Parts: sequence; structure tokens; C-alpha cells
Amino acid sequence: MPGLFISFEGGEGSGKTTQIRRLEEWFHRHNRDVVVTREPGGSPGAEEIRNLLLTGDPGRWDAVTEALLMFASRRDHVERTIRPALAGGKVVLSDRFADSSVAYQGFGHGLGADYIQNLWHIAIGDFKPDLTLIFDLPVDIGLERAGARFANVSAAEDRFERMGTAFHQRLRDGFLEIAREDSKRCKIIDANGDINQVTERMIATVSAHIPAPGA
Amino acid sequence: MPGLFISFEGGEGSGKTTQIRRLEEWFHRHNRDVVVTREPGGSPGAEEIRNLLLTGDPGRWDAVTEALLMFASRRDHVERTIRPALAGGKVVLSDRFADSSVAYQGFGHGLGADYIQNLWHIAIGDFKPDLTLIFDLPVDIGLERAGARFANVSAAEDRFERMGTAFHQRLRDGFLEIAREDSKRCKIIDANGDINQVTERMIATVSAHIPAPGA
Repeated sequence: MPGLFISFEGGEGSGKTTQIRRLEEWFHRHNRDVVVTREPGGSPGAEEIRNLLLTGDPGRWDAVTEALLMFASRRDHVERTIRPALAGGKVVLSDRFADSSVAYQGFGHGLGADYIQNLWHIAIGDFKPDLTLIFDLPVDIGLERAGARFANVSAAEDRFERMGTAFHQRLRDGFLEIAREDSKRCKIIDANGDINQVTERMIATVSAHIPAPGA
Repeated sequence: MPGLFISFEGGEGSGKTTQIRRLEEWFHRHNRDVVVTREPGGSPGAEEIRNLLLTGDPGRWDAVTEALLMFASRRDHVERTIRPALAGGKVVLSDRFADSSVAYQGFGHGLGADYIQNLWHIAIGDFKPDLTLIFDLPVDIGLERAGARFANVSAAEDRFERMGTAFHQRLRDGFLEIAREDSKRCKIIDANGDINQVTERMIATVSAHIPAPGA
């Protein structure tokens, strides 16, 4: 059984984390070994870089430094976690991957998609997910959900949540643009509404776009 | 008085740190404000990245991740420390700069000079020192000096020192190649012999290649 790499993308509060757990269960029912991972992070070194990226003031790093740190952590994640798991025939489900850099630093911070694509190539060549699920939600609903999640948490990893509504609107538009540009790999999942409905949409999309899992 | 940016390069144990202090004193005698800084590091964020880079096992990061982390820290260093100091008319003396990435990751680890130059451009555009002094020393002498420095120091920042003699030979050859490629900016200082002689060579080179300091 060949490995399979699926990334989960979308703005804050889009429900990715819950849906990843459900897709993990779905693959387990089809007798697949699953590795659930996340970015930034996903390997010991990358998790150390994650701490630099997600805490502190919004202006702690400028956009270029942030992009370089993101791809440094991604390189480590790919080499030490993702590639070995795929080589072992596992399903890898990652909460965010390189499209997040295109959306956050490319569109959100305005570095441009081409700039990030260039960095992508330098850092990990043409490596990319087999399938990318983009969980789409109106910005106000997403930030409200994310705000509830971070309330009362001290030292929260909320640096990006605090970047303002205009930033998050550019982010959403960026993800939709990414899906248009690479429509074969990237599928939009409507993340609005009941959690079970979103799961059904996700499973339908996964079933339609990957080889039949198990048999 | 316009700002002036001089970087100090060379292998381990080449005596850069001592010579930087002496050049700082020389500029002080010429009534220039001097900022002494270093890489990786030189700004609060970059110093945090430095800690990830210089401690731990030699194999802690692969060459690409290491190069990305180096340029992330360098971007922060340039934007938060070097550019502001130059804008204020100061002399900036940096213990290492981007040529170290060309030498260490490009030549030492074999990523190639072109690969690092591409990353250089992505991270900081065409920003570079006005003058780069490359302190050249036979590898065995340099490692012996560096070894004496790190003996009995626990948790030493010695990750690069421990990379082996062949690595350090590629490093030295790399620095000499860099000096050949950009001979207008990069000047080789023979770092062998008496410290005072090396200082004299350095001052002669600086005096010959920069506008007369002060007046």
C-alpha cells in the first residue's frame, strides 16, 4: 500500500483539528496506519521553531523572517516525519502544510504567492501533498470560534489570531485563490454548519479523489 | 558621515573576535560610533535562533534546514540591528555574515554557492557588507585554537567545531573561493602568526579599501 499525504488548510477556527481526528478514524476503519501531525512543528526540531513562531507580539518577526522560519520548520518536518512515514506506507494527515505559507505570508502579509513558491522550491523541492483539503468559513465566524478557544488561556499560541480582520480576509481569499490555481490537488470543504455535515462533505471529497483505501 | 558595514569571516579559531575589538578601538580613535555584532544572532530574535543552531548534535538539522535558519536569523539581524545602525551613520562590525552561509552550508555541506546565493537574495535582497575581511589560517591550527577555547566549557556552542577536519578544509577552500569571486569586496587577511601582526595587516587593508574614517 503506497503512502498517502493529505494536508488540512483553512483560517483560524475552521474546525480542521476535529475533522482530522474523524478522518483518522475513517482510515483506521479501512485498516490504514495513520500519522497525524501539524505545522508549524511535527518533528522535535520543528516544534522548537514553532514556539518562536506562534508566541509573542504580532510584530515579533517581519514577514520574510517568518516565511524563512516556517520553511525551516517545514523542511525538518518533511525530512524527519513525513517522508519516513510515507516510505512506510502510512497515511499522513497534517494540520497545515506549505499552502499555509502561501496564504499567510504570501497573501496575508503581501509577499506574494510567487515569492513563497520560490522559497517552497528551495526548501523542499517539488514535494507536496497528494490531496489538500481547504476548510472554508466566513472570517467573522472563524475568528469567533478561535476566540472562544483561546479565551482564558495564558501564553496562548495566538500570535496569528491577533493580526486583525483584514489580514484574515486576505488569508481566506488567498486560500480560495490557491484552490483555483491547483484545483486538481486542492479541494474546498464548506466548513460552515453542523460538524457532522462537514465530516460528510470531507469524506465524500476524500473518497472521490484518492485511490480506494484498503479493500 | 555615511554608515559603514564590515563583516569578519573565517574558520574556527582564526582570531576574528580579538581583531574585531581592535578594529573597534581603531574606529573609536577616529571618532566613529561603532556597533559590534555577530552571527548567527545580533538581535533579540536572531539570538533565539542562534541557540537552535549552535547547540546539540552535529546532525540536529540537515544542511537545508540549517541554511534556512541561518537566513531567518540574518534577516532579523539586518532589519532590526544593522540597517538602523547604518542609517544612523554608525560603523557596524559583524563577526560573520552571509558569506559564512556560502562557506558553511554551500561549500562545507555541499549545497553549492549558487543555492545559497539564491536564498541570500530571497532573504535580504542585494544587501551585503561594504567590506568583508576573511581571516585565513591552516585548518589544523584553527581547530587547535578553537579546541583550547571550548575545553572545559559545558553546553558549549561547539556544534560546528565538531564537524570534522574534512568539513573544515572545505570551509577554508570555500572562503578562498568567495574571495576570488568577489575580490573587490572580500579581502583575505593572513591570520597566522603574532596577534599584533595580524592587526597591522587588518588595519592596512581597512585603510586601503574604505573612505578615510573621520578627518
